[in-house]
Amino acid sequence: MSSNSFGKLFTVTTFGESHGPAIGCVIDGCPPGLPIDAGEFRHDLDRRATGKSRHTSQRREADEVEILSGVYEGRSTGTPIALLIRNTDQRSKDYGDIAQTFRPGHADYSYWQKYGIRDPRGGGRSSARETTMRVAAAVVAKKWLAERHGVRVRGYLSQLGDAKPRGFDWNAVEQNPFFWPCAEQVPELEKAMDALRKSGDSVGARVTVVADGVPPGWGEPIYGKLDGDLASALMSINAVKGVEIGDGFAAVEQHGSQHRDEMRLDGFTSNHAGGILGGISTGQAVVASIALKPTSSILIPGRSVNLAGEPVEVVTKGRHDPCVGVRATPIAEAMMALVLMDHALRHRAQCGDVGAVQPRIP
Amino acid sequence: MSSNSFGKLFTVTTFGESHGPAIGCVIDGCPPGLPIDAGEFRHDLDRRATGKSRHTSQRREADEVEILSGVYEGRSTGTPIALLIRNTDQRSKDYGDIAQTFRPGHADYSYWQKYGIRDPRGGGRSSARETTMRVAAAVVAKKWLAERHGVRVRGYLSQLGDAKPRGFDWNAVEQNPFFWPCAEQVPELEKAMDALRKSGDSVGARVTVVADGVPPGWGEPIYGKLDGDLASALMSINAVKGVEIGDGFAAVEQHGSQHRDEMRLDGFTSNHAGGILGGISTGQAVVASIALKPTSSILIPGRSVNLAGEPVEVVTKGRHDPCVGVRATPIAEAMMALVLMDHALRHRAQCGDVGAVQPRIP
Amino acid sequence: MSSNSFGKLFTVTTFGESHGPAIGCVIDGCPPGLPIDAGEFRHDLDRRATGKSRHTSQRREADEVEILSGVYEGRSTGTPIALLIRNTDQRSKDYGDIAQTFRPGHADYSYWQKYGIRDPRGGGRSSARETTMRVAAAVVAKKWLAERHGVRVRGYLSQLGDAKPRGFDWNAVEQNPFFWPCAEQVPELEKAMDALRKSGDSVGARVTVVADGVPPGWGEPIYGKLDGDLASALMSINAVKGVEIGDGFAAVEQHGSQHRDEMRLDGFTSNHAGGILGGISTGQAVVASIALKPTSSILIPGRSVNLAGEPVEVVTKGRHDPCVGVRATPIAEAMMALVLMDHALRHRAQCGDVGAVQPRIP
Amino acid sequence: MSSNSFGKLFTVTTFGESHGPAIGCVIDGCPPGLPIDAGEFRHDLDRRATGKSRHTSQRREADEVEILSGVYEGRSTGTPIALLIRNTDQRSKDYGDIAQTFRPGHADYSYWQKYGIRDPRGGGRSSARETTMRVAAAVVAKKWLAERHGVRVRGYLSQLGDAKPRGFDWNAVEQNPFFWPCAEQVPELEKAMDALRKSGDSVGARVTVVADGVPPGWGEPIYGKLDGDLASALMSINAVKGVEIGDGFAAVEQHGSQHRDEMRLDGFTSNHAGGILGGISTGQAVVASIALKPTSSILIPGRSVNLAGEPVEVVTKGRHDPCVGVRATPIAEAMMALVLMDHALRHRAQCGDVGAVQPRIP
Repeated sequence: MSSNSFGKLFTVTTFGESHGPAIGCVIDGCPPGLPIDAGEFRHDLDRRATGKSRHTSQRREADEVEILSGVYEGRSTGTPIALLIRNTDQRSKDYGDIAQTFRPGHADYSYWQKYGIRDPRGGGRSSARETTMRVAAAVVAKKWLAERHGVRVRGYLSQLGDAKPRGFDWNAVEQNPFFWPCAEQVPELEKAMDALRKSGDSVGARVTVVADGVPPGWGEPIYGKLDGDLASALMSINAVKGVEIGDGFAAVEQHGSQHRDEMRLDGFTSNHAGGILGGISTGQAVVASIALKPTSSILIPGRSVNLAGEPVEVVTKGRHDPCVGVRATPIAEAMMALVLMDHALRHRAQCGDVGAVQPRIP
Repeated sequence: MSSNSFGKLFTVTTFGESHGPAIGCVIDGCPPGLPIDAGEFRHDLDRRATGKSRHTSQRREADEVEILSGVYEGRSTGTPIALLIRNTDQRSKDYGDIAQTFRPGHADYSYWQKYGIRDPRGGGRSSARETTMRVAAAVVAKKWLAERHGVRVRGYLSQLGDAKPRGFDWNAVEQNPFFWPCAEQVPELEKAMDALRKSGDSVGARVTVVADGVPPGWGEPIYGKLDGDLASALMSINAVKGVEIGDGFAAVEQHGSQHRDEMRLDGFTSNHAGGILGGISTGQAVVASIALKPTSSILIPGRSVNLAGEPVEVVTKGRHDPCVGVRATPIAEAMMALVLMDHALRHRAQCGDVGAVQPRIP
Repeated sequence: MSSNSFGKLFTVTTFGESHGPAIGCVIDGCPPGLPIDAGEFRHDLDRRATGKSRHTSQRREADEVEILSGVYEGRSTGTPIALLIRNTDQRSKDYGDIAQTFRPGHADYSYWQKYGIRDPRGGGRSSARETTMRVAAAVVAKKWLAERHGVRVRGYLSQLGDAKPRGFDWNAVEQNPFFWPCAEQVPELEKAMDALRKSGDSVGARVTVVADGVPPGWGEPIYGKLDGDLASALMSINAVKGVEIGDGFAAVEQHGSQHRDEMRLDGFTSNHAGGILGGISTGQAVVASIALKPTSSILIPGRSVNLAGEPVEVVTKGRHDPCVGVRATPIAEAMMALVLMDHALRHRAQCGDVGAVQPRIP
Repeated sequence: MSSNSFGKLFTVTTFGESHGPAIGCVIDGCPPGLPIDAGEFRHDLDRRATGKSRHTSQRREADEVEILSGVYEGRSTGTPIALLIRNTDQRSKDYGDIAQTFRPGHADYSYWQKYGIRDPRGGGRSSARETTMRVAAAVVAKKWLAERHGVRVRGYLSQLGDAKPRGFDWNAVEQNPFFWPCAEQVPELEKAMDALRKSGDSVGARVTVVADGVPPGWGEPIYGKLDGDLASALMSINAVKGVEIGDGFAAVEQHGSQHRDEMRLDGFTSNHAGGILGGISTGQAVVASIALKPTSSILIPGRSVNLAGEPVEVVTKGRHDPCVGVRATPIAEAMMALVLMDHALRHRAQCGDVGAVQPRIP
């Protein structure tokens, strides 16, 4: 499979650079007959949009999705659905400096070593701009998962630097620019972000995604495990350095008597496993978390080298994002939705539509 | 790709159940001309073997590897290399109980819900027995990586329950049954394991794997990133609940000025990134860690349900492993070696043999 | 996907050389619950067996299939089914000559140029011995297709040199060593084969395969077309130089008014298309034919070069096959069954189990 | 792999319907540094263009290629190259009739049975319009193959109905609208085509493609054979019903002494094999031929059924193509170029850049 494609049966291929003419994706394998309208992409793209608040950087993309194929009279036809977004914000900035320098913590050096050429404009292909198309593709996946199986995928910011939620309310999540689940903490977070921006530095974050309604049986042992595919999907998001399923690294210090989720006729008594056992969903909520590193584009100068092989000092000019994790929630949701969609189709390929054997606990 | 296959160009397909006639694998894509001898598998298989010490369970597999194909006069021919290990320890135990019951924390319930049938003997396909073939296949990968690129993949146990290494010495790692990097702590760990076994409980662990000598340029954006592929490879190991690259979840609380690895002409000044930026290797050591949950097979009874839909109490009989993470180190090394091997071939497919562009820092 | 694997969802990976220790395959993606017994492989393997009659070469393989995994208590479990056949007929012949020489018309030279090493014993990996495992794997596919969809795959020899059937009777096909559909011609064919063997030469053949009962809707545009996949599947059989769907090359001289299959409420009025339109099955019989070249292993000397770069004369010693196409029928059936099985699963992945829209013509 | 993607390492994903907003493709895996200019697509797209002569139908597409990604300062960067062509000729024709009827010989019925929905405008996804993007993608492949390996891919019409070339001259091929290799016959062919159009009927054709300069060693046994991949690639072209490698079906009546290509130090003495043995290139010209059926869109009425389940008579209105094979040559060349490109990369992945072992015959 091409390395810019994701998913075995619900396959999303993305293309495009941050400051090229356009970004886009091709969705192959969408079941036919699904209602799809260009307007439906608006909501999630807005949630992801970089210009959402003063806490994220200022590019204000129009992000108008054009459906180029695969939809006829408002419904998917089973053929590839191509989506296109023109890059309207291609400022004719001078990239001369960036083109000559390897910014520390960025992919500049590794791309250069791999390809011997790189598009320096706004990070080129390695820009988080690419994730826009993941979110767009996932709109289709989320819709099918909801209509067909009642699956709902939601996420929230579960840590911002050293701040952790003091309470939890799904309703709060969508009502603040951080996707933070505890409303009363939001003013503190805003203050902390402002201070951080002022200092010219950045901080990491943690995002948690939860899928409700996933039936038992999705996931394929051994190398197509649901958690294995979630791990690569989430790790492929820009700035992610760690992935956890369920309790994740907390399990290192747990005892077996504490970690294993017991079963009763009315359901599991806990969900330390994060809804996956042996790589296959159990019917509980599927839970995953990711660690996002602090962005390397900060106002504090950093040492590096340039194309001429000379030592240089690099400093990001203008505004910067004190925490890129703040806008990662919709992207993490998107990746989980794409993984689940793919496995829904894979499951019915091998095991059919028919459904559960008995007993099934709630 | 089949879900029991791993790798795009160096493709390893495994088969076999814990207590079936045999386990095996097919390695497709091995470069021709590599010297391979059946005896070479011994070392790593012994390291993985479950009967290694009193701290791991007692199955004593012969694990004699038979090379069925792909090697002629001691060298790989470029055609599929099939390896076979007979399961000699197929005790004709009565699996009636296990077959009727879903053990908590195991894959019994999820396999049943997916397939409507499962092989209950020793965990069937979901047994860690399968990882034997990963280790065997990785012997081939490690050898090519070492001969061709000077890459060396090594791992160690970086946490056992709440115990962390007080010192670090690669030489110590292979001289104790825990792969622990600090020799003076070994007696304490043994004592702790004995106490845990006595209590009938288990504990989690953390394993870290390091690859030295990886050249810059391996890894493919966007969905074939080196870290993304490592994440799925490592998450696919039994009992793994989390994966970190470099600093991993510690990055959540770090600042950008602290996390980003600056570059000087004599090299990077640090390696918080774990040797990967933008999904592509930087030339630094590639570092990944995993969290292993405490095994669910413990002597302490647990509640569950059975096939008849009745509540039952499940208890593991006989000896048990107080920490399955203790034998995970060779498996984690194997998965990292397989990922690196695959990306070595993928890199030369797209970018050729030729090597680095300038400047390359050490 | 590995190049020794076939099929996207019903994936068959084969391994083994003609005179190595064993040949085998791994079937991944088989639906769970299918009854499978080691004895079931006998029938088709015997049909393929090279020692079937005096018209094929004399290797008398035992071809005992051992099921290594994926079957529990006589039913598939959904995990990989590994099949193994030991090569019992590994005569310790001296391959020195063959190892030094590139036989004309064989893969010796191309393998050598690709890999720089080759297993010369009996043709190594390029031997038709490998097709044994295709036939074995297809036994599983045929069974599922028959049980689930009532699909039946049958083939026959449709031309032997310049001889064409004068009549057609499916019942005749299995009652002569040629799979010839016209019983009265068999004595003539035997005579012709004897004469050919005496002359030390060989001749080509044509095989036709027909699948009845294939429902409309199998096949995926654009690059996963049913006919496209049949083409590669059939072309991958040793000695095949051409593939036709339906009327094939006869269509070159046909008119549109003659070729297009008209439809009436009681069905299609003809089947020039071979049951496939736009890459998707129509519900008619799927029909494909292949051209097999005359074997190059003949008693008549041929010019070639050797490893030392010298001109040599090559001659096959001992018995030879005057027409390898005579035993190709079961192999061609196998490849069609594997393609159909794969597309059955692919179809239900995207479009579900549900079945036809109206109107469907018989 | 997605079914709208082609190639394992040089992966081309196409999208778009005949009368949708646009068609396009994404090329993934292109080696970095290749000079690519939007103007380079013109030549081959013009050769394929349907409005080329009075012998092909009249749609006059602008076919302006826009490069959306993957190219920076005129060179490929190694990231996905997306190409887009707007459909300018979307006449707001009434498709009501076609939408209600299954045209005989077209994919209308099979698409409907598969998906339960279809885009009837101009054939939707099953239109030959899609092949435009194959030709565009192959421009990139051809360029790399030529620059890197000196490979040249050329094709010609080798039969038109029952007319066969009386002479052969590559120079003639590009100087007539049929890609016919014998200039003196062109007036006859034009006359025949005019007569055919007048009669309202159509006829089939045969196209042959030849690649010179392919080094020995490309192609992967067993299921990734060069001829196997060519077979599926060529069979996936609209209207193709047969594929031959080298002598193809003529081999059925040949003798082994005649068919096998002998080798001398100064090269092969013949090329019946079409440059491929055991699925691997031999260094000779790679030769393949295809059979194209007569188009079903003719002025002569045909019987069919409609969506209401009633018998109907279908007749194509307006101008029609008397032979679709006339414009298939550039498409067949494109598919061969894409297959060769993919195998060039696959070969160097497994076997390295290094090149041939000795002896290599010219």
